[in-house]
Amino acid sequence: MFRIGQSTDIHQLKEGRKMILGGVEIEHEKGPYGHSDADVLVHAIGESILGALALGDLGKHFPDTDDTYKGMDSMNMLKEIYNMMIAKGYVIGNLDALIMIERPKMAPHIATMRANIAQALCCDIEQVSIKATRGEKMGFVGREEGVLAQCICLLQKSENA
Amino acid sequence: MFRIGQSTDIHQLKEGRKMILGGVEIEHEKGPYGHSDADVLVHAIGESILGALALGDLGKHFPDTDDTYKGMDSMNMLKEIYNMMIAKGYVIGNLDALIMIERPKMAPHIATMRANIAQALCCDIEQVSIKATRGEKMGFVGREEGVLAQCICLLQKSENA
Amino acid sequence: MFRIGQSTDIHQLKEGRKMILGGVEIEHEKGPYGHSDADVLVHAIGESILGALALGDLGKHFPDTDDTYKGMDSMNMLKEIYNMMIAKGYVIGNLDALIMIERPKMAPHIATMRANIAQALCCDIEQVSIKATRGEKMGFVGREEGVLAQCICLLQKSENA
Repeated sequence: MFRIGQSTDIHQLKEGRKMILGGVEIEHEKGPYGHSDADVLVHAIGESILGALALGDLGKHFPDTDDTYKGMDSMNMLKEIYNMMIAKGYVIGNLDALIMIERPKMAPHIATMRANIAQALCCDIEQVSIKATRGEKMGFVGREEGVLAQCICLLQKSENA
Repeated sequence: MFRIGQSTDIHQLKEGRKMILGGVEIEHEKGPYGHSDADVLVHAIGESILGALALGDLGKHFPDTDDTYKGMDSMNMLKEIYNMMIAKGYVIGNLDALIMIERPKMAPHIATMRANIAQALCCDIEQVSIKATRGEKMGFVGREEGVLAQCICLLQKSENA
Repeated sequence: MFRIGQSTDIHQLKEGRKMILGGVEIEHEKGPYGHSDADVLVHAIGESILGALALGDLGKHFPDTDDTYKGMDSMNMLKEIYNMMIAKGYVIGNLDALIMIERPKMAPHIATMRANIAQALCCDIEQVSIKATRGEKMGFVGREEGVLAQCICLLQKSENA
């Protein structure tokens, strides 16, 4: 009836890369480095859903050796995961994510990120929580070498299933 | 009916700061550095509840630019969060937290921490789990530069709501 | 009726140690260092169950100062935790774990790990999710100094309880 899932995703921050987080392009001198658009928040959210359904990790479904996914908009990845969830007969109960990043401030972008995620997962914005915190100058987040996102989700068996 | 939330909080450890964790003052040569009393465990627990309710992060409700919260007892913060939860019609199902700290040993203090948290959240001590682990000399926890706490919680719609 | 738990466990990687993860011996030049076989994945899974039941942390039940547990097969530890769970009247709803390790690739071993865990916890393999990700050359995982595993679990009151 209920299943829970979790994920943590990390990416290096590199100059010359766009910073796209939760589907929002944020002005900054660096951005997450990766095969796709490296939207670490959307990756953590998507993988937590895959995890709840025991469908394997992100790398299994979207291998970074596959050119199909090069530069891919991670929102499309999330929509594919949404389809897998529906096919399994589940819907989102709620999800709660956290971005760990030293700079810039995430607060001005949180509302749009939540709306983007809710739209991709066909749920209400009240079912999508996104929080942010800093690395307090410690670790790879604190040294601005990277960004980390984590998410947990609660899925519910669909009444139509 | 059910909602889940999570949080990770980190603080630097600095000499000349009191170490207050889970509302317990622990004798140690360093303590968590921050605007409030920097009780990283209570912060993670409180923010996991905010997250479950999609109410935003700790920084949104208790900005570290606000002098009201300077040196604040984080237990008061947790009681404010408890009130927000009740206002939303939810009660604690259970919560499970982990403190990652290299030294000193947390084991002698866990029972008191659990009692403090249960009191602030008006729930039974059996609904509050607190665990501890070391950083194995790795990372900022292992180098004793900082302390990390994480928590997940399961909230339940109140029968009175 | 439902309870959730979580854990994060970390171990140093050292030459001359076997790499045993999820009960699978994996060929590699290093392995997790610790008192028992240091199966970081099984530790995180087991501790998440203890956490859900508010039974304390792994160190409380299996102290690394106790020679009984020296070199212990962590699968036996997990079976003991399973017995504690049953005694409390709970069964596994589902669990979702993540191994963070730079090398070697975990993908070839995930299916066997899941089968091992499901067997120890007397549940279906579909209730056990194991995912893996890399440290992207950052932090102690990225520098191949250590390995981290995290897990969350959803427990359900047994119908027989």
